[in-house]
Amino acid sequence: MSGLEIILQKIADKTVTIGVIGLGYVGLPLAVTFARNGVTVLGFEKSEKKTALVNTGQNYISDIKNADLETVVKNTKLLSATTDFSRIKECDAIIICVPTPLDKFKEPDMGYIENACIDIGRNMKAGTFISLESTTYPTTTENFIKPIIERESGSKEGRDFWLCFSPERVDPGNKDYKTENTPKVVGPLGEDAKKIANALYGLAIQKLYFVSSPKAAEMVKILENTYRLVNISLINELALLSGKMDIDIWEVIEAAKTKPYGFQAFYPGPGIGGHCIPLDPFYLEYIAKNYNFDLSMIHTAGAINNLMPYRMMNKIAFALNRHKKAMNGSTILFLGIAYKPDIDDARESPALLVMEQVTKKGARVLYHDPYIHEITDEHENHYENVDLTDELLAKADCVVFTTNHSCFDVERIVAKAPLIVDMRNVIKNIKIESHKIFKL
Amino acid sequence: MSGLEIILQKIADKTVTIGVIGLGYVGLPLAVTFARNGVTVLGFEKSEKKTALVNTGQNYISDIKNADLETVVKNTKLLSATTDFSRIKECDAIIICVPTPLDKFKEPDMGYIENACIDIGRNMKAGTFISLESTTYPTTTENFIKPIIERESGSKEGRDFWLCFSPERVDPGNKDYKTENTPKVVGPLGEDAKKIANALYGLAIQKLYFVSSPKAAEMVKILENTYRLVNISLINELALLSGKMDIDIWEVIEAAKTKPYGFQAFYPGPGIGGHCIPLDPFYLEYIAKNYNFDLSMIHTAGAINNLMPYRMMNKIAFALNRHKKAMNGSTILFLGIAYKPDIDDARESPALLVMEQVTKKGARVLYHDPYIHEITDEHENHYENVDLTDELLAKADCVVFTTNHSCFDVERIVAKAPLIVDMRNVIKNIKIESHKIFKL
Repeated sequence: MSGLEIILQKIADKTVTIGVIGLGYVGLPLAVTFARNGVTVLGFEKSEKKTALVNTGQNYISDIKNADLETVVKNTKLLSATTDFSRIKECDAIIICVPTPLDKFKEPDMGYIENACIDIGRNMKAGTFISLESTTYPTTTENFIKPIIERESGSKEGRDFWLCFSPERVDPGNKDYKTENTPKVVGPLGEDAKKIANALYGLAIQKLYFVSSPKAAEMVKILENTYRLVNISLINELALLSGKMDIDIWEVIEAAKTKPYGFQAFYPGPGIGGHCIPLDPFYLEYIAKNYNFDLSMIHTAGAINNLMPYRMMNKIAFALNRHKKAMNGSTILFLGIAYKPDIDDARESPALLVMEQVTKKGARVLYHDPYIHEITDEHENHYENVDLTDELLAKADCVVFTTNHSCFDVERIVAKAPLIVDMRNVIKNIKIESHKIFKL
Repeated sequence: MSGLEIILQKIADKTVTIGVIGLGYVGLPLAVTFARNGVTVLGFEKSEKKTALVNTGQNYISDIKNADLETVVKNTKLLSATTDFSRIKECDAIIICVPTPLDKFKEPDMGYIENACIDIGRNMKAGTFISLESTTYPTTTENFIKPIIERESGSKEGRDFWLCFSPERVDPGNKDYKTENTPKVVGPLGEDAKKIANALYGLAIQKLYFVSSPKAAEMVKILENTYRLVNISLINELALLSGKMDIDIWEVIEAAKTKPYGFQAFYPGPGIGGHCIPLDPFYLEYIAKNYNFDLSMIHTAGAINNLMPYRMMNKIAFALNRHKKAMNGSTILFLGIAYKPDIDDARESPALLVMEQVTKKGARVLYHDPYIHEITDEHENHYENVDLTDELLAKADCVVFTTNHSCFDVERIVAKAPLIVDMRNVIKNIKIESHKIFKL
């Protein structure tokens, strides 16, 4: 049998072993999904702590049901994790789910992908199928991954191993769409890779959608998130203008939503958070420069987003000012630091950036977020969740809604707090004296 | 009875007379809709020609059924038109549907609204309700219209007359949503105006949605169209980059559409046309300057759009270049000059701008559009529709798809034309030699 026939046979009779590199928000749900569908999965993680958690069936990703992880680790024993990347040789297919952050200069940090590819190239056996799911700039699979793996392994793509790009579409907190039932875009390199990708992902994902190349698939994910970045930035800019014009942007958005065609609502906020939208478009901006092309929409959207923490700091300062208070020495209580409602993730959360700014101006900063017990920002400022007592609400000089967690008792907060800056339109159906409330 | 009670009573027993100023794409459908619902409508038009057409029941707006116009003019006689604006005094309510174009410096041309308000102020009777439907910048109703009418009439808003802003949402060619069944946003000035607006528009429109002020309603319409401008500009920019990267943007968009949440597809093209999207956002940019506010997203989107005709001219030039031809002296046949498919409207059509550019470079320009028999662009270049014969297709140096009318026989065109530039992804399911076809 040829290498292609061997892997297709293994997939067909479910004797295939899939390695998933990176057991975070993308990798662990994917690993659990494959294992729940009867496939042996070996998870590769640099973190000893995460590896130990997985191997004892302890879940740390809120989109995964605890029972599901426990079942595939303890009962069916189809999922296990390791820090030993030499075990890549045990795998027939490898799916890369490592982070692709930006560095301090907002350039792509390809280090995680590079290391994964070096590990793969040095350890994989002949006939391995490799799929990248991490968001990255178009051409990564063909021009970045392929040469590294070929160099490290001495083998040849299309003959000794196959490549594919298939973007993750994880939407943390989404109740309807999980790994299994979210349609999956797949961009294989060549016809053989397409056959393998179709069979392999078909084991666990309900609907696959093939595009003609890895770079098309890479562009798909960037388009999806660029769309969001641009529209959130647009509505943030319009919100700021509306504030100056004494127009309630939230009311405007609700009215625009009554248009039955050609409109999708986005909502303003203190900035853009999470691990996708603030980052992905800048991967495209990076590669565009290689083609002497300036992406002016992304650039402009990024500029608006960069300024939001300062504008939000100003909002708070002018709210305090109406109470004849300076920010310096005031106590400011932030409500919600997750980057979106009802999740426990504060990555790239705009709340942290606003907190950093007001801290710099001498404010005493407290936060309450039932989902996040403590947090250290990138400048090593450490904060711990405080209880939301009536006393605390009353003594804070300003209370700021930064995330609209649905569990917040807004009525009580409004009743007790002397001054509120509402960046999320949390207070909409409650009558409140206008001198007490500032909206974005 | 008070003036308020009188007009409400007239609306209740359908003895109200509504004046509609401007019988174009917005005003005539609205007038017909009211008349079809048993209300007497008097249409005001500066154009003698349009007035005569209406009064003889001859339809000139494709969204209106000929029979509907004929019925309300000839049978029920509820609709008539006049050029005599002194007859405004016969009306209980006036709805302004005049154009709001941009001038040559891309600043709002408020002349049509201003003239309508002068006519109203000089002629209206006490107790008239006035609603503006023309898209305009927020604050227009309160800060521009109200003072003119008060000045010209010597009467007082809220006592002698009432004001309202309710944006038209006409989408030419839309088969599902017409005037009657498109939800209507209404921003009345004050509670009395709200009562009248509710009763009056309720006679003919199925669903009304009230916002708290005219300026909120003004912002709603601008938000809707700014959303479209920004997203079309974004996808145009990404299409240009994709071209350089040898990625098919159309394939990417189709794949992104499989995301079941958080994405709405927009398609690239030679530019942005029609009477709304290329104009409305710049009304907002204009008023924003009054608040020392720069709308960077709109500005950037506008800049991309401005460049599209030149970029499209380059596409054509480089297509010809591959056939070793110069644009100067070549015959270029444009297919479709309406600003969107299957309509007869070429206002602000990007096709015209591309035609202008290639004409300047010495090309001989022909067009075929079954919906538009002749056209004169803003520089007085006159063009007439030509028949799409096999001979013409064969002898044109380049055929350019600028509008994707569904009636085009793409297969035949592809077979006969020696060189095609496809700006609308018209050619997707047809095999074609790659040297013959250039896509956006």
